[in-house]
Amino acid sequence: MRNWLLPEHIADILPATARQVESAKAAMLEQFRTAGYELVSPPLIEYIEALVSEDDGALDIKTFKLDDHLSGRQLGLRADITPQVARIDAHLLSERTGVTRLCYAGSVVHARPNGLMSSREPLQVGAELYGYAGIEADLEVIGLMLDALRLGGVENIRLDVGHIAIFRGLVAAAALDATSARELFAALQSKDGATIRELVAGVAEPYRSAFIALPELYGPASMLESARSRLPSLPEIELGLMQLSAIARALQGKVELSFDLAELRSGFYHTGLLFTAYAPGWSDALARGGRYDNVGRRFGRARPATGFSLDLRDLIRILPARHPARGIRVAARQLPDASNEVARLRATGEIVVLDYLGESAEALGCDRELVATSEGWQIVPFH
Amino acid sequence: MRNWLLPEHIADILPATARQVESAKAAMLEQFRTAGYELVSPPLIEYIEALVSEDDGALDIKTFKLDDHLSGRQLGLRADITPQVARIDAHLLSERTGVTRLCYAGSVVHARPNGLMSSREPLQVGAELYGYAGIEADLEVIGLMLDALRLGGVENIRLDVGHIAIFRGLVAAAALDATSARELFAALQSKDGATIRELVAGVAEPYRSAFIALPELYGPASMLESARSRLPSLPEIELGLMQLSAIARALQGKVELSFDLAELRSGFYHTGLLFTAYAPGWSDALARGGRYDNVGRRFGRARPATGFSLDLRDLIRILPARHPARGIRVAARQLPDASNEVARLRATGEIVVLDYLGESAEALGCDRELVATSEGWQIVPFH
Repeated sequence: MRNWLLPEHIADILPATARQVESAKAAMLEQFRTAGYELVSPPLIEYIEALVSEDDGALDIKTFKLDDHLSGRQLGLRADITPQVARIDAHLLSERTGVTRLCYAGSVVHARPNGLMSSREPLQVGAELYGYAGIEADLEVIGLMLDALRLGGVENIRLDVGHIAIFRGLVAAAALDATSARELFAALQSKDGATIRELVAGVAEPYRSAFIALPELYGPASMLESARSRLPSLPEIELGLMQLSAIARALQGKVELSFDLAELRSGFYHTGLLFTAYAPGWSDALARGGRYDNVGRRFGRARPATGFSLDLRDLIRILPARHPARGIRVAARQLPDASNEVARLRATGEIVVLDYLGESAEALGCDRELVATSEGWQIVPFH
Repeated sequence: MRNWLLPEHIADILPATARQVESAKAAMLEQFRTAGYELVSPPLIEYIEALVSEDDGALDIKTFKLDDHLSGRQLGLRADITPQVARIDAHLLSERTGVTRLCYAGSVVHARPNGLMSSREPLQVGAELYGYAGIEADLEVIGLMLDALRLGGVENIRLDVGHIAIFRGLVAAAALDATSARELFAALQSKDGATIRELVAGVAEPYRSAFIALPELYGPASMLESARSRLPSLPEIELGLMQLSAIARALQGKVELSFDLAELRSGFYHTGLLFTAYAPGWSDALARGGRYDNVGRRFGRARPATGFSLDLRDLIRILPARHPARGIRVAARQLPDASNEVARLRATGEIVVLDYLGESAEALGCDRELVATSEGWQIVPFH
């Protein structure tokens, strides 16, 4: 029944898990609050041009289109919240010239799912830091991401770190055209060595060897040394490797770390560091982040930006199963006499359930009941 | 800028209010929890037939349609959550034969706004009780609605109560056809006496006089007596007036009450009591509820149901303005030395903001700072 009632990759969140999702979300938002992140809640629908930039075909395909009879224009149902937050930083908070920290938690909808097991309605929770280009900002965001995952119940996190500016620096130095760069990007993403060799056959040294080396440059922090020797000393590469080393120093011993210079991530807006969190038993990433300087440019304000997001609906699957709290039964005929006592108990956080039908303890979800005695209201076991 | 960037009747919720909305929502969901209501979170998109029934043109017009390339079928972006909760009660929780209490909080989207000042993206918060037809269930839901509004900061609430079964009983007894009934319904809603008289010109007594009397039957509980004398004694009318009197007795002195027998509410699913909350300074209703027995019939399970909902985004406008909490500044260069102290402070709920740029107290939102002294970390004023 569930299958034919709801579209593919769409599901209800039912009582057994809905409260846990709400609690995990509240805990993450509280964590962001104490780190100085202000909450924003952008709308579910916007003009399509505000949601999807011209050069981001992947996001365009994921975005449902709507005809707005009010404006006669096309709207989109958001498939990502990051561009909305960039719009808010660029326009609504444009009087702020220093660092702006923003966070959010809301549903997005994908016209096509990311994968076979993916929901088409992720619950995207994230945090973004605008206005500071230093690596310390990335470290702040990575720390927030790791804490958020731990609050969500994830253990033994592995952090994969890449740096897209290294690839971009090579592309610029080798003067590749846009099409070749795109093809090479795709081949690197799938670590397809044969195709990479083919694509860079005509590229000048030392760039040709550097492109071929990229898929082999992964592993623990010690790999960064061999990257230094195998890649040409372009400014972007120097800076990228320096930032990766800083990450290694700062996070050493705090999380399992690996580096991957061919990790490029699909998606249009990243410009520097890329970080992805994995955990044992999960084939897909649990959270992703990175630097996307200038993401606000199309809203008229390009400035440094770094952030992360995760799908809380995806995390639901590992949230520890919690036994629902048991409540206190009150026979409905005891009202209104019991009203004050019921209100008092509820104010202490107890679940107090009015019983109209004389239902079982199991059906009511109660293990105690409120009864009138000669000494006033008393709570007694209920089976 | 804000105007041209976002579609009409669509807005961001910005930092100044987003936390307040989140807090009010959490307080309402906690209140529902302690009253035994289980949280559900249905999806934003569903097959259009699940969201909108054939006979509900008003909801159909409000619902954005989407083409689903995955299924080839038409989806809708939900404009109301109540039909989704009815689906959940009917299908997913169908093993439960007693009372089921469900609550929710989520955004809905309206293709057309309800009014000039209305958002097209209400944040619908509500609670529903399935499986008990007695007036006590309506009283439980009304109590929950009043408490939710008070948690949202609303004072001096006025509750308007109507009963659609009185009108429906008259229509059945007078054997009106569907078209006449619909026209009369519209004329009664707008209290258009001339049109009512015209429409019932050919209706037999005592029903003709009863229809004409309906718009005059409003006021405090004492009005119910005159209704008893002016309306014919049909079973639906007897029961309806008895239920309204029970409401009057139970809520007397607890809230400002008025009754209105011509209050019929648009919307297809109501079958009995209708209650609407108003407050001074608000032209529109702040919350609405009522009985909608059999709402789950099209999902294969018709049973008693009563519930209410409110738009928390609408309530934002009256949420008391709260000064944002001021944080503690930490110069970023003090990390990682200060890391443990920062984590400790944040765990106590303090906002601790890393300062990368040497910003002002105002820009950082901080009134204190953390400094290293010979006696360890100390918090000192920061201006």
